[in-house]
Amino acid sequence: MEKILVANLGEFGLIERFRKQIRTDPSVIKGSGDDCAVIKFSPDKYLLFTCDMIVEKVDFLAQDKPELIGRKALSLSISDIAACGGIPRYCLISMGLPKNTALKEVDGIYRGIKKLAQKFKINMVGGDLSRSERITIDVSMLGLVEKKYLVLRSGAKKGDIIFVTGSLGGSMLGKHLKFMPRLKEARLLVENFKINSMIDISDGLIQDLGHILKQSQAGAIIYENLIPLSNQAKDLNDAFYGGEDFELLFTLPRNQAGRLSRKRWPGFKPIGEIVNKKYGLRLIDKKGREKVLCAKGFTHF
Amino acid sequence: MEKILVANLGEFGLIERFRKQIRTDPSVIKGSGDDCAVIKFSPDKYLLFTCDMIVEKVDFLAQDKPELIGRKALSLSISDIAACGGIPRYCLISMGLPKNTALKEVDGIYRGIKKLAQKFKINMVGGDLSRSERITIDVSMLGLVEKKYLVLRSGAKKGDIIFVTGSLGGSMLGKHLKFMPRLKEARLLVENFKINSMIDISDGLIQDLGHILKQSQAGAIIYENLIPLSNQAKDLNDAFYGGEDFELLFTLPRNQAGRLSRKRWPGFKPIGEIVNKKYGLRLIDKKGREKVLCAKGFTHF
Repeated sequence: MEKILVANLGEFGLIERFRKQIRTDPSVIKGSGDDCAVIKFSPDKYLLFTCDMIVEKVDFLAQDKPELIGRKALSLSISDIAACGGIPRYCLISMGLPKNTALKEVDGIYRGIKKLAQKFKINMVGGDLSRSERITIDVSMLGLVEKKYLVLRSGAKKGDIIFVTGSLGGSMLGKHLKFMPRLKEARLLVENFKINSMIDISDGLIQDLGHILKQSQAGAIIYENLIPLSNQAKDLNDAFYGGEDFELLFTLPRNQAGRLSRKRWPGFKPIGEIVNKKYGLRLIDKKGREKVLCAKGFTHF
Repeated sequence: MEKILVANLGEFGLIERFRKQIRTDPSVIKGSGDDCAVIKFSPDKYLLFTCDMIVEKVDFLAQDKPELIGRKALSLSISDIAACGGIPRYCLISMGLPKNTALKEVDGIYRGIKKLAQKFKINMVGGDLSRSERITIDVSMLGLVEKKYLVLRSGAKKGDIIFVTGSLGGSMLGKHLKFMPRLKEARLLVENFKINSMIDISDGLIQDLGHILKQSQAGAIIYENLIPLSNQAKDLNDAFYGGEDFELLFTLPRNQAGRLSRKRWPGFKPIGEIVNKKYGLRLIDKKGREKVLCAKGFTHF
């Protein structure tokens, strides 16, 4: 019998495989399958719970500046909390380090984490240290979100306008280590608009939009000439499938979208709209031609 | 200038180095430096937050039964929650996997985690998957504890009797993969006695007792003939410095200790008493001779 490897299922196949088996109790508002888990907390707030692991040679290189490595580790989880509309509050840092790691390097990583934690007023409340072959950092984070501000991937509705923050593509040239988690933007959105769905773009626009569509049982049409390409992006594919942009992708009702556009805030761009599920995900290219897209993007396996 | 490595500071030197730099806000009852972080939650409860990372070739071997690997990953965090007197409630699993990992192996690991989570009614609410050189599992866990039942390492008082659960030593021969986290015992203790301090023995009795003494500003005398050695332990050193027993080490006032002893519950053994800090940590051996011990034990670097 042939041996099946995790690579055969792929990252999302594997996640789906595990997710199907899980039952949770009524204190869990949302378990696996969103940017954060959502747990009952107080009469007006939910607890958000998320973790992100980064590994040397996969998510960063040994020669990257240690401070930026630490910064990235924390940024990923902050971005997850932001995508649910919440505010990050507490974190634990698990670190796996080779025995011969220079103290200077660990100090740098730690300084990167600490600086960003201070900027966002996140309490570092502990962690775990282990020996490992390659530097591995897993950050677990708790955040709080007012019940009325919680946004999930599953709330997109037909007629919603799809927006992104910032610009997309070419993140691997540097942005992936230096991006600023869109916490301020996310809070501005949930406090002033009715946001129906939101996700942070970690695995490319198309795959992450695919997550919203799947969870919301919806389809989407996006317009090539509306996609905000970054200066570092080689082409549209970079934005579609590149990953690690950590911009926000969100949808809101048309009237709300109009109000958002009239604010003329820089960095919020409409790129398309939510349609019936049967249309799947379609791109209207610059010549007005329609093209069906497949939800693929970065995957670890 | 000579390059300083993490191995030169050691695991606890490194933790101490980072810990000193941290400030937390008043919602944090206890940050780094105990089995769990303790965070304000409700009028009568605290939130407990902990994480534990295990790595192939350090904490388990590739040939170990996958189900036991998963089991161990979860057990460590349950043990931490137990040591604070709480009840585990939610967990996230971050997993780093080599690309060529057999699906069967991951399924086994996952099954081990799931079975134990079900046994302890812990909600698995998500996680993260990453590619890595060696199998790496980081579990982050949330628990709840009634304010009146919270136990920290720092509460030991002069005159307290020191107890351990179960027996110590030789864990590496198998127990470290199969131990049952002492949750039931911990709850029995906090619900029925005034426990002044508690820790789980992960790095050897002496090092972990050392943590209690340091945090409590206290000393201790323990008696060789009272130490419950496991059948697997080669000698006293195994129990003192071996690590991974995951038994509970706790202290309680003398009158409470008497009441506990009179219950004749199996598996709770007095091993010594808390004394003034100036005595440090001393052992009375089988011949009645006094010996000063140094707080050493397992360290990752």
